[in-house]
Amino acid sequence: MISLNLIKEISRPSATKIVLLVIDGLGGLPNPETGRTELETAYTPNLDQLAAKGICGLTDPVSPGITPGSVPGHLALLGYNPISFNIGRGALEALGIDFDLETGDIAARGNFCTVDKAGLVTDRRAGRISTEQSTKLCQLLDGLVTDGVKIIVRPVKEHRLVVVFRGQGLAADISDSDPQQVGVAPKALTALSPEASRMASIANQFVAQAEKVLAEHHPANMVLLRGFSKRPQFPTMGEIYKLRPAAIVSYPMYRGLAKGVGMEILKTGNTIEDELQTLKQNYNSYDFFFIHIKGTDAAGEDGDFDTRVALLEQIDRALSSLTSLEPDVIVVTGDHSTPALLRGHSWHPVPVLLYSKWCRPDRVSQFSESACLLGGLGRLPATQIMPLAMANALKLTKFGA
Amino acid sequence: MISLNLIKEISRPSATKIVLLVIDGLGGLPNPETGRTELETAYTPNLDQLAAKGICGLTDPVSPGITPGSVPGHLALLGYNPISFNIGRGALEALGIDFDLETGDIAARGNFCTVDKAGLVTDRRAGRISTEQSTKLCQLLDGLVTDGVKIIVRPVKEHRLVVVFRGQGLAADISDSDPQQVGVAPKALTALSPEASRMASIANQFVAQAEKVLAEHHPANMVLLRGFSKRPQFPTMGEIYKLRPAAIVSYPMYRGLAKGVGMEILKTGNTIEDELQTLKQNYNSYDFFFIHIKGTDAAGEDGDFDTRVALLEQIDRALSSLTSLEPDVIVVTGDHSTPALLRGHSWHPVPVLLYSKWCRPDRVSQFSESACLLGGLGRLPATQIMPLAMANALKLTKFGA
Repeated sequence: MISLNLIKEISRPSATKIVLLVIDGLGGLPNPETGRTELETAYTPNLDQLAAKGICGLTDPVSPGITPGSVPGHLALLGYNPISFNIGRGALEALGIDFDLETGDIAARGNFCTVDKAGLVTDRRAGRISTEQSTKLCQLLDGLVTDGVKIIVRPVKEHRLVVVFRGQGLAADISDSDPQQVGVAPKALTALSPEASRMASIANQFVAQAEKVLAEHHPANMVLLRGFSKRPQFPTMGEIYKLRPAAIVSYPMYRGLAKGVGMEILKTGNTIEDELQTLKQNYNSYDFFFIHIKGTDAAGEDGDFDTRVALLEQIDRALSSLTSLEPDVIVVTGDHSTPALLRGHSWHPVPVLLYSKWCRPDRVSQFSESACLLGGLGRLPATQIMPLAMANALKLTKFGA
Repeated sequence: MISLNLIKEISRPSATKIVLLVIDGLGGLPNPETGRTELETAYTPNLDQLAAKGICGLTDPVSPGITPGSVPGHLALLGYNPISFNIGRGALEALGIDFDLETGDIAARGNFCTVDKAGLVTDRRAGRISTEQSTKLCQLLDGLVTDGVKIIVRPVKEHRLVVVFRGQGLAADISDSDPQQVGVAPKALTALSPEASRMASIANQFVAQAEKVLAEHHPANMVLLRGFSKRPQFPTMGEIYKLRPAAIVSYPMYRGLAKGVGMEILKTGNTIEDELQTLKQNYNSYDFFFIHIKGTDAAGEDGDFDTRVALLEQIDRALSSLTSLEPDVIVVTGDHSTPALLRGHSWHPVPVLLYSKWCRPDRVSQFSESACLLGGLGRLPATQIMPLAMANALKLTKFGA
């Protein structure tokens, strides 16, 4: 595997532009009645035309047989080895709400939850209280100072919140308090290394204070914390690729991920049309665009084959507002497969299409799993997509004399 | 490459069952007269049907161009990187005769051989004396104690024996005494590291004693030792995959190998029909079955194209007693190629077929080298077969958030 350091050495800034369109959970499995996957069922003349002009293949986000979560799936697409790089969920959540995590800050994801008189969790989501209510409760908890550590509390959406611990000598490796089930008490937060004992102690003190403050606010009378983590320390896309990268994404987690690798987050709407409108408006200001479409994954998790087909057709119809900008490189792929049949992420390889003036086209003229199998990109680790996109944008110089 | 530690983290026990059918030396080369390989010549309607329902590919056991021995070939199939993992031949031989090697024991493979009056080897196999004779001679040598080290001697088959050294402070890295040719004297055993000097000294004392004991037992009047090794220290399949694995194999070396990775060895016969009968009888007690068929490799080594074809047809006819058990995942492949044309193991990639309810089928409808080339598994390292089989049996959870 090519190291990021090597890419950093040979990358150079240029005027060319790359658009990476990520259709979340793109890969599927055949409908038993028709023998065709979601992508093979959808009518996608524009994607097919792009496949005919470009070069296709199938990627493994992590390794054959391994089902990736969204974070490793996306890190791989952006060229980061998903086994050696990771972003903790707390940091992701904080970055996703545009909270400016400082070096040394420890962030945790939180839930407001309901506990009974015995202190046992009866609802891990506190009846999904409104974001408005949650915002008020977060204000009650925000700004506490414990043993010199400032505790910042911010609402995310509904019952979800972020807690940031800011102070000296904090380490992130502590356990979760969320028991992940009802009928039991929240767990004590424990240090997983000697360095984390201060963090565990302060987090437990915060939870005890929160319990008092929230006592009269049933159903949100307690908090559960998990995913303690720091802002990722890895090199940004700007450093590695010399790109000015921008993310057009609506879901907080993916905004956090994009911010974690140094992308600018562009304000956008919820539909593919909104996102492509944002692309058009900002086209002159950046040279790399990561556009993320979530619905296809959600429909896969719901086992909804037909909605996946409909969403793929919607993306296809909108595609001309992307291609009409004439980016030098267009990559269309997914972060993993989410077959409706499996109702979840899966290990199946993911179709990828790369179009540029400089790709060596293959004979694939349809964007589908079975057609991509015979494509010119072959079967490749997803981490190789960025080097290929960079090469096709003529942004990589020769390696070696 | 995915580490076994990562697989260990994401594997989980489940009720699904995996059958790995290894046809030793499966891959071939075209008969110059017909242009078809052994597998392409054989009439195999049942394997072809399984290929049509499943997904096919070609594997490299070690790396393209590398001809694997049986041990690396099998270790790769079971998911162990054959470059970093190994089982010494002495340990294999001991495990293969169901000898219970203890931690710290050093095992060596031995041959009874013939030496002349000058002490030069005239027959490395002592005229292939009978197992009965060899058993008696082993009893004469068994139980010697040298410098506090107990020496256990067991017959294997014909002239072959196992010598186990049991005591404190023994290291395995000593050279062989077998000169691998006649007309020369057995070599002195020498330590290959300072830690192994005690082992070398004791082994040389044993050889000297054996020479005296055997003096009057021509043609078996000397022993040759090689492959000094310890029981493998690596994680078992149970630890890595959370499987209850069983091996249905008749050859001692493969029994040793299977035992070395923690499989139960099931008593079975010599034919594919016997082996599948054993599978049926034990089907409820395990969730992973490794079935090994040796004849195809032996016929390849003999340059016997037609016998390879006949054996493949025999396997095909017997296949229904495997498929009728309806395992969740069936993998059919080989540990390497043994083309009759080359009369030996070769570096050519090996056909692999994976059937499960959850595989994404390809357009391959024939189980052959040329058809597998266009299969949906593509070209893959053999170490990726186990993660794929585990994924298809829904025994791997998601990696990362």
